[in-house]
Amino acid sequence: MRHRYAGIVRLASIAAPLLSLLIAPVRPATAQTITAKQRADVNRLIDAALRDSLAYDRLSIMTDRFGNRISGSKSLESAIDWILAEMKADGLANVRGEPVMVPHWVRGEESASLVSPRAVPLHMLGLGMSVATPPGGITAPVLVVGSFDELQRRAAEAKGKIVLFDHPFPPDKPGLDGYREANVYRGGSPAAAAKVGAVAVLIRSIASFSIQSPHTGSTRYDTTVAKIPAAALSIEDAEMLHRMQDHGEKVVVKLTMNAKQLPDAPSRNVVAELRGSSKADEVVVFGGHIDSWDVGQGAMDDGACSFAAWEAVRLMKQLGLQPKRTVRAVMWTNEENGGRGGRGYRDAHESELSKHSAAMECDNGVFKPYGVRFQGSDAGLAFVKQVGALLDRIGASRVIRGDGEADVGPIIQRGVPGLALDVDDSKYFWYHHSWGDMMTVIDRDDYAKCIATMAVMAYVLADLDQPVPR
Amino acid sequence: MRHRYAGIVRLASIAAPLLSLLIAPVRPATAQTITAKQRADVNRLIDAALRDSLAYDRLSIMTDRFGNRISGSKSLESAIDWILAEMKADGLANVRGEPVMVPHWVRGEESASLVSPRAVPLHMLGLGMSVATPPGGITAPVLVVGSFDELQRRAAEAKGKIVLFDHPFPPDKPGLDGYREANVYRGGSPAAAAKVGAVAVLIRSIASFSIQSPHTGSTRYDTTVAKIPAAALSIEDAEMLHRMQDHGEKVVVKLTMNAKQLPDAPSRNVVAELRGSSKADEVVVFGGHIDSWDVGQGAMDDGACSFAAWEAVRLMKQLGLQPKRTVRAVMWTNEENGGRGGRGYRDAHESELSKHSAAMECDNGVFKPYGVRFQGSDAGLAFVKQVGALLDRIGASRVIRGDGEADVGPIIQRGVPGLALDVDDSKYFWYHHSWGDMMTVIDRDDYAKCIATMAVMAYVLADLDQPVPR
Repeated sequence: MRHRYAGIVRLASIAAPLLSLLIAPVRPATAQTITAKQRADVNRLIDAALRDSLAYDRLSIMTDRFGNRISGSKSLESAIDWILAEMKADGLANVRGEPVMVPHWVRGEESASLVSPRAVPLHMLGLGMSVATPPGGITAPVLVVGSFDELQRRAAEAKGKIVLFDHPFPPDKPGLDGYREANVYRGGSPAAAAKVGAVAVLIRSIASFSIQSPHTGSTRYDTTVAKIPAAALSIEDAEMLHRMQDHGEKVVVKLTMNAKQLPDAPSRNVVAELRGSSKADEVVVFGGHIDSWDVGQGAMDDGACSFAAWEAVRLMKQLGLQPKRTVRAVMWTNEENGGRGGRGYRDAHESELSKHSAAMECDNGVFKPYGVRFQGSDAGLAFVKQVGALLDRIGASRVIRGDGEADVGPIIQRGVPGLALDVDDSKYFWYHHSWGDMMTVIDRDDYAKCIATMAVMAYVLADLDQPVPR
Repeated sequence: MRHRYAGIVRLASIAAPLLSLLIAPVRPATAQTITAKQRADVNRLIDAALRDSLAYDRLSIMTDRFGNRISGSKSLESAIDWILAEMKADGLANVRGEPVMVPHWVRGEESASLVSPRAVPLHMLGLGMSVATPPGGITAPVLVVGSFDELQRRAAEAKGKIVLFDHPFPPDKPGLDGYREANVYRGGSPAAAAKVGAVAVLIRSIASFSIQSPHTGSTRYDTTVAKIPAAALSIEDAEMLHRMQDHGEKVVVKLTMNAKQLPDAPSRNVVAELRGSSKADEVVVFGGHIDSWDVGQGAMDDGACSFAAWEAVRLMKQLGLQPKRTVRAVMWTNEENGGRGGRGYRDAHESELSKHSAAMECDNGVFKPYGVRFQGSDAGLAFVKQVGALLDRIGASRVIRGDGEADVGPIIQRGVPGLALDVDDSKYFWYHHSWGDMMTVIDRDDYAKCIATMAVMAYVLADLDQPVPR
């Protein structure tokens, strides 16, 4: 199957330039004719997404009823059961949960408090996958540093202490670029602190703004050094401890964490389809992840995106649209602390990856959409830009180069062209992985535009004569 | 003394128009000659405030060391002791704490959690001055309403329930105007709910933005009905409960509060002066309040403002400036839950109120300053506008009509012309009365401009030949 599809791609890549020479000398090799019907369908899809979307209401029912959905939790599996039943009620095709085993980390009771220079509770969240403290907690002096480099310079002071990394989110980069820079402290801090003899590690929350809101997220351990407990403080509390140290105060913190790593648990990638007409074995896959962190409602990260793909397929069906290729909405599981859903999808669909025309994920919020980021060949980029132009009406026509999201990473690595919904993410990291990830963050109008963008991209890519060039 | 001063004012008010007729026919009655020396002094004050201010660092030392400062607390009195010692070290005149008895409300342990349709902790803060629940808490069904009117219409449903007022802060008015509209629910909700038989009351936090951040503040009781416990939920949680009710779920909440009202406690208004040269018995008083709520650091509300007036006086002294009138910095106590400091000042200074040329308070944050609001006569407004013009250099020259702040209210009622520092308060209610009121909110540059504005206003009003016309 893979070879036959690869053959088609090769044939198309030869035929297209020849054809373009016959039609017009400036027409690029990747140029696609977008038909009048396709243009009309696009407008119907946009109209329906802006007017008839069920996604917001369904998302609020799901998040209010089941709450957040960490891997291994009952709430995740109950939410998946409910979604599968609703998808079946929508009459979607091949509705199923594809089994995946996922890590099962449980936060348990946790707290941090300042002991010296005065007693005050701190705003903290343990980092995901952290080990626990001893039952009575760890009470130790704190060494605050601004960076890994500063810790190296002050390594001699760290032994027996709790190291706090007060490394700011780059103030001029509130979105994904800043996150990628700052986030090295979430994953790298336990090993760096353990190497210099620290007994626990704290980080300033990886967030571009805070109202005393701590932010969790996965951390990781280095097998060569001790596993020490790791937690995030709010920006305000991290800055306070830093100032206290600068003022010459002796800063002592008590950290108590009861986190547990249980045996892997069963979960599922949620799948629903609209089968294609003439090329049903070719696939445009798109979606978000259904798991979340264990705080807030996981409405923004990533319930809204997951429901956007589902809603896009439902709207196509409601409008009687059937593209040539199959459109497949997927809600991957375990994006947050394992990536098992993305790898599980790759493995379960190994035999048809060569027939995946494109893989699109939304995992940066459903704020005002700009368009998509594209990860693939130059020919693929030019191809997708033509589809993007159809979204000019809602201001979402921009197609730029950029990395795909985590769940589609494993299949992008196998050559599938990747798209990521690209939004105004300047406030995404205000809420990300915090108690603030609630329905309140979701703006109905922006959300509807995101759904329209995903629906149009998926539909047109699935209906064009050629797949996205690799 | 009072009569002598009143005589001067009367004489001046007669002499000024006569003088103005001699100089220029269009010159208003309130026109003041601002001398070249005064203009030079203004520029020196602005330069010093922007360059040499100690206020930010002192504020961080005070808030980091003593934390928040609710009336009756040890932290408030310890902070006052420290401030008095620092003011003496600065060499300021008549540094003193003026005794005031204040209410002593203690929050104690408190929590709220959703019991049905699912168990989840809620983000809450008890309202200041609330009574406690019984020791085991109150578990009851919730009736969510959007307004007092809606509660009236649904009064029959409220008996035995916890009423939640989910009344939004006006979205188009993020500052003081919106606060005044929304805040009626903080004070009025307990009586309204008790009248229809509710067992407790919750409000949506009075805030223009939230990251799951509850906001406290004083509530009040009506002696004709039962006193029921009152607390605020975060905006997100209030909206969630509202949606659940709209979805037909049975919403049950457990509320536990252990608040206590203890006997009144001693506190102090903090006073420091720069004595005037030729009219030392006349006074320009200005400042903020030193008490705060018992969450966060009380850095914004109202530590920064209190310290701004102190710093303004210190800078005048450092620059060798001595205006004609006495400039008096005051940090009033108990603004938040009693207003005893403001009334105490009025009573203690009863005999010299007629000699108060102006009273200026800063209690809306130290964000980018626009100028001042003025409460007084038309002549007074015109008079103050001339001083405001001197602040054009830092964009703070605007003088508009508006109410004074709470602590100077009692003396404004006695005829003292009132000024309020007027700032960009569009984010003030993001942090107000919440755990988010931390040093992180304070921007050094904006703060320096606020100090410059207060320093220039106080200095020039104290140095002009005439007092502000009443």
